[in-house]
Amino acid sequence: MLQRSAFAHPFEWIEEEAARRARAGLVRTLRPRAADSPLLDLASNDYLGLTRHPEVTAAAADAARRWGAGATGSRLVSGTTELHTQLERELAEFTGFESALVLSSGYAANLAVLTALTAGGSLIVSDAGNHASIVDGCRLSRAETAVTPHADPAAVRKSLDGHRGRALVVSDSVFSVDGDAAPLRELASVAREFGAALIVDDAHGLGVLGPGGRGALHAAGLAGAPDAVATVTLSKSLGSQGGAVLGPAHVIDHLVNAARTFIFDTGLAPAAAGAALASLRLLRREPALADRVRDVSATLHRRLTDAHLAAVRPDAAVVSVRAPSAEAALRWAADCRTEGLAVGCFRPPSVPDGISRLRLTARADLTDAQIEGAVDAIVRTAPPC
Amino acid sequence: MLQRSAFAHPFEWIEEEAARRARAGLVRTLRPRAADSPLLDLASNDYLGLTRHPEVTAAAADAARRWGAGATGSRLVSGTTELHTQLERELAEFTGFESALVLSSGYAANLAVLTALTAGGSLIVSDAGNHASIVDGCRLSRAETAVTPHADPAAVRKSLDGHRGRALVVSDSVFSVDGDAAPLRELASVAREFGAALIVDDAHGLGVLGPGGRGALHAAGLAGAPDAVATVTLSKSLGSQGGAVLGPAHVIDHLVNAARTFIFDTGLAPAAAGAALASLRLLRREPALADRVRDVSATLHRRLTDAHLAAVRPDAAVVSVRAPSAEAALRWAADCRTEGLAVGCFRPPSVPDGISRLRLTARADLTDAQIEGAVDAIVRTAPPC
Repeated sequence: MLQRSAFAHPFEWIEEEAARRARAGLVRTLRPRAADSPLLDLASNDYLGLTRHPEVTAAAADAARRWGAGATGSRLVSGTTELHTQLERELAEFTGFESALVLSSGYAANLAVLTALTAGGSLIVSDAGNHASIVDGCRLSRAETAVTPHADPAAVRKSLDGHRGRALVVSDSVFSVDGDAAPLRELASVAREFGAALIVDDAHGLGVLGPGGRGALHAAGLAGAPDAVATVTLSKSLGSQGGAVLGPAHVIDHLVNAARTFIFDTGLAPAAAGAALASLRLLRREPALADRVRDVSATLHRRLTDAHLAAVRPDAAVVSVRAPSAEAALRWAADCRTEGLAVGCFRPPSVPDGISRLRLTARADLTDAQIEGAVDAIVRTAPPC
Repeated sequence: MLQRSAFAHPFEWIEEEAARRARAGLVRTLRPRAADSPLLDLASNDYLGLTRHPEVTAAAADAARRWGAGATGSRLVSGTTELHTQLERELAEFTGFESALVLSSGYAANLAVLTALTAGGSLIVSDAGNHASIVDGCRLSRAETAVTPHADPAAVRKSLDGHRGRALVVSDSVFSVDGDAAPLRELASVAREFGAALIVDDAHGLGVLGPGGRGALHAAGLAGAPDAVATVTLSKSLGSQGGAVLGPAHVIDHLVNAARTFIFDTGLAPAAAGAALASLRLLRREPALADRVRDVSATLHRRLTDAHLAAVRPDAAVVSVRAPSAEAALRWAADCRTEGLAVGCFRPPSVPDGISRLRLTARADLTDAQIEGAVDAIVRTAPPC
């Protein structure tokens, strides 16, 4: 089929890279799960256990029937339904921000904010542990990026000092890999000193931190601040899909007019918007869900530490446990699976520090017996360190 | 709330930009639609009219109930269900490619392909009319990008000539703004001459072009070629949400291991995967849907041209009609709305050539009477040119 050519096949290099990955033991493969999987889930980000809640799935089904299976176009053409604006109103109200904008993913939300709120000559100061979507947002922007050591407000201050022009300080609220929280108050204070805006990815804080799960910015007294913008996902605590930006109304209006990943993307499917709205209302009604998930993660951490495993003290729902190597982590996760437990396994190159670990996620709907059983299985299968 | 600072408020510039947009008449605002909107839709990308098809919405509802409202995590952790892999199998089979990978949007699919299939020293040759997600994919990659004049294989050849190292040629199959098709056979031939891969965004071709809607690559004899990769959306002809990459199995495996917008994003919601699968099966069963949408766009074009409007001959479902100015286009679209017709209005900066136009989309489920009524309304409200 190929014409004769002096050039190599364009994808020859892929075979070489695949062989290199195989030699390093770093091949990733998709493992499809069944609808009735018997595994106990400690791997997902379904922190409040809402993704299969009957009210939430019924809302998804109703929205699909009422509005159609898709949004049919970009938000500015045909893709904004009254359901989208209702969700935006209630998200803003719940989290304490003036305005909200829903996008098709948290990834798209971070790209939107970081590209549309910067220009040539801007500076973005970004934590070394920030999520890949923030790293990509920095790359995609025309701003200069200064990457600061993890959770280090003094380093942020040093980066801002001397910069002229627009500046953003950007951080995850809760870091996905180790589950630790950012020093948001200190970051806000440093940002304000230099007239910089604070951008916080609260993907892992919404539904878990703050009063009734209102998020990390609410907990830090930053919700609704004129110089703070949050991004969240609808796919973790809210059990659905999508992302959102929360901030002052003029910032949201600016994104509608300028953010390419908003303007040129199809709107979120009605089923996802409906499900997220149902979860949000459920969380308002049952604010104790947020307390419960923090209790569960604290218990997991305490029991694992008691068993002498190297678990990181969790600030939210994620409990990270160090493994001696990538191979050991992979085997450990596989052994957990044999014991009926699904756990996350984070290895290079997904982990910025190169340390492999099991990543466990607390869920509000785990019973005490399930927690005990899970800890037993994890301890029983732990590699020697 | 702000501390005293020698610096300006970080979002002061937003007010200035908003004022500038207002002066230029380029403010964009979201217009939420009701579920029972009485407007005839010629604005959306629901080309086959499937987004509200009872089989498709029922599949979305069933998937939400069976699998949950969200995928619960990234595809490599907990976000791959058997429904995702089934959709991937059937998408690949239908379009004639070896393998498929589903992402949360077409935007994410283009970012995935352009970043993961290039490296420092690579060259991407990109058509000047390509979609924003391709432009962003080029920016996000570490490759050098050469932007060639629209639909100009000779210019592509000139860009490739003399480059050493990996190269990609990337093009929309059907350009979103004017609805014209790319010269895919010529581009493939030039790419092969230089050992470059051909990447085609078939968002507007899937379901519309090729036998039974198998897409533009199938129509051009490129489906399944070892050096061709396609991206598609699930949100246009398939009436749902999401995107996919189609290509050789080793390319898809590489994306699973290396594409950041795949690895670090939550999987597509089951409802969206289920709806897309139902649409795909419906299209297999009713291949005439693809013929019908092309007939409708041809009729729209002919009738508008007969009325002396500057409509561009459509190669797929999109019919573009030139307007004398951004203001005139906006007024025209508003007048159509008063006449009961929703049409797209594309203005700068969304249009690379600065020309404002109405963008009409054909749908397979439009009746002849609806088409006639729509044409009458568009002609009646047309601005003098």
